[in-house]
Amino acid sequence: MRRIKVIISYDGSGFEGYQIQPEGRTVQQELEAALLVIHKGSAIRVAASGRTDAGVHAIGQVLHFDTPLGIPGDRWPKVLNTRLPADIRVLHAEEVPESFHARFSATGKTYRYIWELAEVPSPFRRHFASPSRGGVPDIGRMKTGAAHLVGTHDFTSFCSAKTDVADKVRTVEEIRFEEHGDELHMVITGSGFLYNMVRIIAGTLWAAGTGLLDPADIPGILTAKDRTQGGKTAPPQGLYLEKVHYGE
Amino acid sequence: MRRIKVIISYDGSGFEGYQIQPEGRTVQQELEAALLVIHKGSAIRVAASGRTDAGVHAIGQVLHFDTPLGIPGDRWPKVLNTRLPADIRVLHAEEVPESFHARFSATGKTYRYIWELAEVPSPFRRHFASPSRGGVPDIGRMKTGAAHLVGTHDFTSFCSAKTDVADKVRTVEEIRFEEHGDELHMVITGSGFLYNMVRIIAGTLWAAGTGLLDPADIPGILTAKDRTQGGKTAPPQGLYLEKVHYGE
Repeated sequence: MRRIKVIISYDGSGFEGYQIQPEGRTVQQELEAALLVIHKGSAIRVAASGRTDAGVHAIGQVLHFDTPLGIPGDRWPKVLNTRLPADIRVLHAEEVPESFHARFSATGKTYRYIWELAEVPSPFRRHFASPSRGGVPDIGRMKTGAAHLVGTHDFTSFCSAKTDVADKVRTVEEIRFEEHGDELHMVITGSGFLYNMVRIIAGTLWAAGTGLLDPADIPGILTAKDRTQGGKTAPPQGLYLEKVHYGE
Repeated sequence: MRRIKVIISYDGSGFEGYQIQPEGRTVQQELEAALLVIHKGSAIRVAASGRTDAGVHAIGQVLHFDTPLGIPGDRWPKVLNTRLPADIRVLHAEEVPESFHARFSATGKTYRYIWELAEVPSPFRRHFASPSRGGVPDIGRMKTGAAHLVGTHDFTSFCSAKTDVADKVRTVEEIRFEEHGDELHMVITGSGFLYNMVRIIAGTLWAAGTGLLDPADIPGILTAKDRTQGGKTAPPQGLYLEKVHYGE
């Protein structure tokens, strides 16, 4: 068996998220369906770095699978892309040692969150950015708020109350803001993220930027360890899984 | 009655084109449905600068309608946008004299055609650009070909064979190429365009750029007055109606 590492990009707007579930189209389902055809009916299971929710996009999701086929690593993008729907594209593939695991070998992730600031949101961006609904944020206030989140903290206030992992301590390495024309991007890198954590951070920093919340309140929100203290969960269409890090 | 001129943008990927037809969702149908609600059940007919086909986008489509309501011109974007689906946005509106007609007052149009040159087409651009399918065009050859099309010509070879207008003489004022990262844009301005004319010009110039056709053959294609001599009709998702000119 060869282990193949694959980097994929997908438009999340047509999916009920990454992971296979009883109903609705998912990215994993499409990948495994393509692999089933390539393997002439033998089921091949795919392991991803993690899930993404319905409507959330990926620029660089990473996954691996094991195959008995002798197809060289760099041929896999073409082999898969001809069998995948156009909203999933394989950007890169390579053979890796069996010790590599898309999820367990990951040392961190970078996500990008995009807001569209135009007063009338573009019809072309409605699935690909979060509308500002006329709000114009003070980016300085967003940066002040973000600085309180960088570091190692218990992020209980910044994850879905449904999260069932015990340890909610995570390290946020960097939160960076970029302005691209009518868009504001937040780029966040960390060792790991809890369920909805990036979207809640985005929603909280947006609230800080638009005056709904004082950036100085963020340390108190962290120590409260209470989801109801954090900001709203920002909508999924603004979120992109940009890169999965493997200690490069 | 007041006549209102409106500039709209739409993502054509969810529509069977601009014009109302027996089956399928259209832009005109959504506009007239919104106006019906605003006018409390009185039907208001909308006149556009022209149709766009299924999958074709608009950055600046222009239309007009007559209304008995006293809503000031500049209030109409908000009034309409709250009632329109998110894939149509009203960008501008103003009251105009009754002598203005969105179609008959137009003196020209500018279209933009976008190719995505990345070897693996982005899943985010699949509805918004034409994939190059690995082809890398020689833009110099495309420009040479385009120069033969600028001016006043009989464009019979560059319109759908189904076109039933008698006079196929049109003036192309300018064809410009722009490179934006991984994208190639063709921007074409003319006095008027026949059915599928921009997409056939795009397909023919792409063939010139990728070596399937010699740019020097284009004068012969024009004089042949035969659609079978022109290049393929480029796909709709790369095409945008950018601006309608009114002799400004």
